[in-house]
Amino acid sequence: MNDNKLRGLIAATYTPLDLNGELDTDPIGPTTEWLIAQGISGLYTCGSTGEGMSLRSAERCSVAEAYVQSAAGRVPVIVQVGHNSVAEARQLAAHAQQIGADAVSATCPSYFKVNDVDTLVDCMAEVAAGAPKLPFYYYHIPALTGSTLDMVEFLRLGGKRIPNLRGLKYTDTKLHEFQQCLELDQGRFDVVWGCDEMMLGALATGATAAIGSTFNIAAPLYLEIIDAFRLGDFVEARRLQSLSVAMIRAIGKYPFHPAMKSVLGFSGFDLGGCRLPQGRLSQSETETLRNELSLLGYFEWAQPNSHLSAIS
Amino acid sequence: MNDNKLRGLIAATYTPLDLNGELDTDPIGPTTEWLIAQGISGLYTCGSTGEGMSLRSAERCSVAEAYVQSAAGRVPVIVQVGHNSVAEARQLAAHAQQIGADAVSATCPSYFKVNDVDTLVDCMAEVAAGAPKLPFYYYHIPALTGSTLDMVEFLRLGGKRIPNLRGLKYTDTKLHEFQQCLELDQGRFDVVWGCDEMMLGALATGATAAIGSTFNIAAPLYLEIIDAFRLGDFVEARRLQSLSVAMIRAIGKYPFHPAMKSVLGFSGFDLGGCRLPQGRLSQSETETLRNELSLLGYFEWAQPNSHLSAIS
Amino acid sequence: MNDNKLRGLIAATYTPLDLNGELDTDPIGPTTEWLIAQGISGLYTCGSTGEGMSLRSAERCSVAEAYVQSAAGRVPVIVQVGHNSVAEARQLAAHAQQIGADAVSATCPSYFKVNDVDTLVDCMAEVAAGAPKLPFYYYHIPALTGSTLDMVEFLRLGGKRIPNLRGLKYTDTKLHEFQQCLELDQGRFDVVWGCDEMMLGALATGATAAIGSTFNIAAPLYLEIIDAFRLGDFVEARRLQSLSVAMIRAIGKYPFHPAMKSVLGFSGFDLGGCRLPQGRLSQSETETLRNELSLLGYFEWAQPNSHLSAIS
Amino acid sequence: MNDNKLRGLIAATYTPLDLNGELDTDPIGPTTEWLIAQGISGLYTCGSTGEGMSLRSAERCSVAEAYVQSAAGRVPVIVQVGHNSVAEARQLAAHAQQIGADAVSATCPSYFKVNDVDTLVDCMAEVAAGAPKLPFYYYHIPALTGSTLDMVEFLRLGGKRIPNLRGLKYTDTKLHEFQQCLELDQGRFDVVWGCDEMMLGALATGATAAIGSTFNIAAPLYLEIIDAFRLGDFVEARRLQSLSVAMIRAIGKYPFHPAMKSVLGFSGFDLGGCRLPQGRLSQSETETLRNELSLLGYFEWAQPNSHLSAIS
Repeated sequence: MNDNKLRGLIAATYTPLDLNGELDTDPIGPTTEWLIAQGISGLYTCGSTGEGMSLRSAERCSVAEAYVQSAAGRVPVIVQVGHNSVAEARQLAAHAQQIGADAVSATCPSYFKVNDVDTLVDCMAEVAAGAPKLPFYYYHIPALTGSTLDMVEFLRLGGKRIPNLRGLKYTDTKLHEFQQCLELDQGRFDVVWGCDEMMLGALATGATAAIGSTFNIAAPLYLEIIDAFRLGDFVEARRLQSLSVAMIRAIGKYPFHPAMKSVLGFSGFDLGGCRLPQGRLSQSETETLRNELSLLGYFEWAQPNSHLSAIS
Repeated sequence: MNDNKLRGLIAATYTPLDLNGELDTDPIGPTTEWLIAQGISGLYTCGSTGEGMSLRSAERCSVAEAYVQSAAGRVPVIVQVGHNSVAEARQLAAHAQQIGADAVSATCPSYFKVNDVDTLVDCMAEVAAGAPKLPFYYYHIPALTGSTLDMVEFLRLGGKRIPNLRGLKYTDTKLHEFQQCLELDQGRFDVVWGCDEMMLGALATGATAAIGSTFNIAAPLYLEIIDAFRLGDFVEARRLQSLSVAMIRAIGKYPFHPAMKSVLGFSGFDLGGCRLPQGRLSQSETETLRNELSLLGYFEWAQPNSHLSAIS
Repeated sequence: MNDNKLRGLIAATYTPLDLNGELDTDPIGPTTEWLIAQGISGLYTCGSTGEGMSLRSAERCSVAEAYVQSAAGRVPVIVQVGHNSVAEARQLAAHAQQIGADAVSATCPSYFKVNDVDTLVDCMAEVAAGAPKLPFYYYHIPALTGSTLDMVEFLRLGGKRIPNLRGLKYTDTKLHEFQQCLELDQGRFDVVWGCDEMMLGALATGATAAIGSTFNIAAPLYLEIIDAFRLGDFVEARRLQSLSVAMIRAIGKYPFHPAMKSVLGFSGFDLGGCRLPQGRLSQSETETLRNELSLLGYFEWAQPNSHLSAIS
Repeated sequence: MNDNKLRGLIAATYTPLDLNGELDTDPIGPTTEWLIAQGISGLYTCGSTGEGMSLRSAERCSVAEAYVQSAAGRVPVIVQVGHNSVAEARQLAAHAQQIGADAVSATCPSYFKVNDVDTLVDCMAEVAAGAPKLPFYYYHIPALTGSTLDMVEFLRLGGKRIPNLRGLKYTDTKLHEFQQCLELDQGRFDVVWGCDEMMLGALATGATAAIGSTFNIAAPLYLEIIDAFRLGDFVEARRLQSLSVAMIRAIGKYPFHPAMKSVLGFSGFDLGGCRLPQGRLSQSETETLRNELSLLGYFEWAQPNSHLSAIS
């Protein structure tokens, strides 16, 4: 059993942009304070949520630094460094180590597809070698990378050839593969769940940590799911997960991450829109989304210590 | 709340073939007895497991009849009638009603893909109309049909236009969509889980019935998962689910359904191989599989009332 | 060199349905006369165009018989018998031989995907054995079957194990694979082109026959493409192919085969709509399509001996 | 008609790496001389062939500079700048303009997929704006980007919103879409063919330029295809194209670009292997490939002015 495993809700953070789409790190401090106040126990930066792949490398470095500084050691910061250029990813990993990040994570290249586990291990070994003192998490997200390789085999082989391989950010819906990864070698690896809308099923299967974008906007709700699960109150846990599913469905009618940034705006955090190819919601779309979420009772759950039992 | 919902483990049954690949209904009786003795609470015939699509229509009718007769009212029999020809599917549905089946289920056509919910409802309305007195379950299995449509929308629209729509056989890994379907209109629909290797997560999310092929070979194991879940013993439930995952992984190294038929042979049921394009395992593959399963302790779980706690 | 190769334009024929969607073979005679008068040199029945997979087997047999009788030996009739049930496909092949068809063709099963060439040969060997006296053409259409196997390997292996394998209906856009198939073993196989909108490129690459749905509605245009190609007049050949591309693009704004049936209606052949899941065009869609085709000059090309040079 | 269209064979150039996988621009000069001597009429750098996406940005700049300097105005150099970060791609475009490249080309982002033409135009407008004085070619390669959008619509819309849009590098097999793009607005756009193994079909359809990787290793063969096509000698043109298809098939048994680099080694150009995730051939694989190509007569075609008629 690894004592250094991640716990609880890790927010996959957003990258603030100004009206011109330029990076603006100013909101990172207050957003981080708020996330920590909401009960977040870690930050995952420059991932899909943070548009890492849409940023220039210098921008990625700035974002990572700002989050590391804002977290100030209170919660771990994992820096996602995946890039089509494995060499560039390795440099970004080295930078993450240099600035005091707590861990590094990376997707595989996705322009040229990675079609066998051996090559995946080669790629991740090279990236992880850029930050040899930090634990490394492969970021498995086949819907975006196109690499649908067997994660059990990856961990088996990677565990031998990547000294600092710690585990996975597992962003797929195959609970059975997730379970096998979790249990492999007596729980040697830290396998973190990545589908917010299936968290209850993942908890039942053994998840102890999750990385997700909607923890930015509804951490109290997810913490209550965890509480209800621990108490064995499945009726309540399902009711709460159902709210999460409905919320995600409402947001998913729009381009997802631009809509999420609009929702963060509802809590007073103006992080702008997204870089191309994602764009941003129009004002009227934002208002419609606000109404839809309001109908779901969202504005009650968004506050810590809200009385979720009032909604049913 | 619908009182007529399916409960427990529904075996997706196999179709016995002789050495020439011809249908041989003789083993259906004893297999059915054994399944019921193992705690199976329903039979789903001529689905993917039963190679419905690989059979000629007259053969499908014979298989359905044999299972209805063998079940003799002790457990419900659902007959899968999906066909590229919707007209043929409708006739098969009519036959199922005529022979006293308890429900009808169907995939959508898959040669010409169904790409919108409206057309899917049109197709299923036509099939369901062939058996107007029986409840109808749409068989959602996007990995085989290529139709990845939104099941919530299907139920909403289908609930208005298909009088006998009862629910879904949900064979996908999206627990969140499954949950929404389960909860839609206060649980109006009977949504049955179809991924055996994720059963624990589905139970947590609210599943009360499951249809699966591996219930043919390990019903006692799955019943113990359900028991452990009900008792709130997640450590045990995960241990048991983990055995299921390992078993399925071992079988999945081979063409899945031919290998499953080999495993049924280990319990004394010789159902032959599969029709093309699936084939059958060689004798040596069968022996290797037997050894692999033996190492997992499979031959202890395969017996009802086995002491599963002996395996850890 | 095989003397029995197909030549020229083979129409992939439509299946006439009445207003209730029931088979109506009456229009098959006059449609066949018209196709022959337009210069068609063969008929391919019950394929994708003819909705073979959407028909019941008895209906497929009726359609094949009607076309064989109508052709009356003037042009060859190839009967497509592909079915998810290989056993059913074999029976349909036997029927085709019995009624005097000139050749049999079949897709592979597509519910259970065929993922290796060896299994594909096994499947087609079984189907082809149903009509041992007739030449057999594998119908390669990966966009619908999901089987993207290497056709060169299929012909190499199939040529050894399927005595009556004559060749392929090649419905894909890979001219290089098509060329290799054409040239294999000194042109042993009859490889027929299946993408009407790329016919000029296929002619340049060596095609001498093509099977297509739009030959039903614009045979004179395609014959003029062939003439221009033979005369080495590429300016003219491209101009004519360009008209074909524009026509197909206009029709392709609608569900393709239902729209094609509407276009056949413009020439006086009322073949109804399509079976589910394809449907039929509304009256207003049909009128809009008529106008769009009229703007392209379609109603001049649709007549044999029309002066195509008037359109430019 | 645009007078500035590309003509003839544009080599998609390779990027030389040393034994450690580090960039080594030294071989670029001699390779360029050789390509020009072989009849190449342009260079396309840092594309898929040149592993642009696997390089760091500074490396991409160095490669582009070296090719621009080596070409020294004798043939145009097109620099491919596609990147998941549109902002980075724009900077690379600006650099290309600054160093005197003749044109810029870019894929769309592929981590976040581009699913509508409007967004594609937005992305390409931003990239093209980085090099406003240079013509811009969108690099359409859906097999790698996952964006299968309609290129006719892209050109129609892009032609209005991207001032310097010149055309496309069209790397797909749909000759009909290619033809429509070529002919749009009286041939306003320069649409360059990108599938070497289908060049004859593309020539027949109207192609006047092609960008390809195998022009690096067999330019004389492709020039003879063009000659034969122009003379109307299709028997010869097919024979030559057939050699190209066989050569590409032999190379394609290995990871394609690493194998191509081995083949360049046969002509005395040691460009190393490829970056991850592509790798390099082993010595024994290289020897086997050499033998396979030798059996095809490749070492006769590889020399300019070789007597291709000797091979048949």
